[in-house]
Amino acid sequence: MELDICFSPALYPFYRQKNDTVIVVDVFRASATLCAMLANGASAVISVADIEEAKRYKSRGYLVGAERNAQQCDFADFGNSPFDYTREKVAGKEVVFTTTNGTRAIDAAKKAKHLFVGTFSNIEALVQKTVEVAERVIILCAGWNNRASLEDTLFGGRFTEKLLEKIEASLESDAVKIALELWQSAKENPLDYLKNSEHYHRLIANGVENDAEYCLKENSVSVTPVYDKRSNKLIVSH
Amino acid sequence: MELDICFSPALYPFYRQKNDTVIVVDVFRASATLCAMLANGASAVISVADIEEAKRYKSRGYLVGAERNAQQCDFADFGNSPFDYTREKVAGKEVVFTTTNGTRAIDAAKKAKHLFVGTFSNIEALVQKTVEVAERVIILCAGWNNRASLEDTLFGGRFTEKLLEKIEASLESDAVKIALELWQSAKENPLDYLKNSEHYHRLIANGVENDAEYCLKENSVSVTPVYDKRSNKLIVSH
Repeated sequence: MELDICFSPALYPFYRQKNDTVIVVDVFRASATLCAMLANGASAVISVADIEEAKRYKSRGYLVGAERNAQQCDFADFGNSPFDYTREKVAGKEVVFTTTNGTRAIDAAKKAKHLFVGTFSNIEALVQKTVEVAERVIILCAGWNNRASLEDTLFGGRFTEKLLEKIEASLESDAVKIALELWQSAKENPLDYLKNSEHYHRLIANGVENDAEYCLKENSVSVTPVYDKRSNKLIVSH
Repeated sequence: MELDICFSPALYPFYRQKNDTVIVVDVFRASATLCAMLANGASAVISVADIEEAKRYKSRGYLVGAERNAQQCDFADFGNSPFDYTREKVAGKEVVFTTTNGTRAIDAAKKAKHLFVGTFSNIEALVQKTVEVAERVIILCAGWNNRASLEDTLFGGRFTEKLLEKIEASLESDAVKIALELWQSAKENPLDYLKNSEHYHRLIANGVENDAEYCLKENSVSVTPVYDKRSNKLIVSH
């Protein structure tokens, strides 16, 4: 298997190849939130990149999660906290979801052979699924407004480490080496390490630092969200 | 002073701000080669992004250095090795220069307040100049075909370390943290560390691994190339 990591959606055109499996990661917080919805029984997630589209869904009666700049949008039912999406609220329902960075990254990679959403909360399920189906994998970091982010890069390193426990993989890419190096420095205590990151400061400013702890905890769920091209929705991969 | 690092020319639009001083770095090898030309007395360097333009200069009698994919172009007088540009050949002359990645990065940042070219070979002069003139600095990594590169990221870390010895700087950016972390891991022996990089393999394949050693040696020259907007040429900064 071949593995690569792309630090920003804006760089994806320079990383993609035919037959790629793309894993979209937005550690703080869209990936964990999307995993939580599906783990709590949402039947599908409709990822939309812009606010106006989310509002149109809302007016048609859909449940809508919408976040910009780390805050819930006024019109929405939920924000971008994984704790918002309880089983009581989402089981059996479709949820429309738009966030500052995560849904943009999903949009960029919709033409990939497989598109998964992954993060620490579902890493075991994700690695297992990846090993089953992928020939070449790209971790696509959502970043922040197309800027590289510490937490997404870190996850790239952690994913690489986990993948190598299961399968031999080619690590030619400089980006993979950078991510692995970062993970080696952070792995003793990722939360502490990330307290210095740009986005952690944003989370604190918005009073949601508990989310950060959840977002870094491994294997709290066991679903792998996959993009279903036919329906244009994210569903649980089987 | 504020400092940022941009891992690819394609990300520059998401990093730039008004009044930036941009330092273009292409460790293997354009930055060191350009510094060598000016240190050996070239009166100016005309950086061009495309081969056809370089050929037109050649037909008008200019000295031309041209490289694509780590090899010298047939029509050119020089390639992208710093050893090509001896004092005998370049003193007092203007040199036209085009490379796979470095000149593209220079092109991207021509509107910056100040545009310097830097690398390990001129780091002391570069840091000094930066401290004198800059309010906000972006290290713009040339990368490889817009992909992030280990060696340019590493230089970002080294530059940050050197800068902090001279001045207080704000290090809010996640990219700066990533680069610094990488440098901490590599600083004992950067050449050894980079033997694992994508581009080092390209250099070996082209028989120019001696260039790599030169490109990582600090302070072999004491010039800072600066882009002169009026003449559209790179000259020695005074």
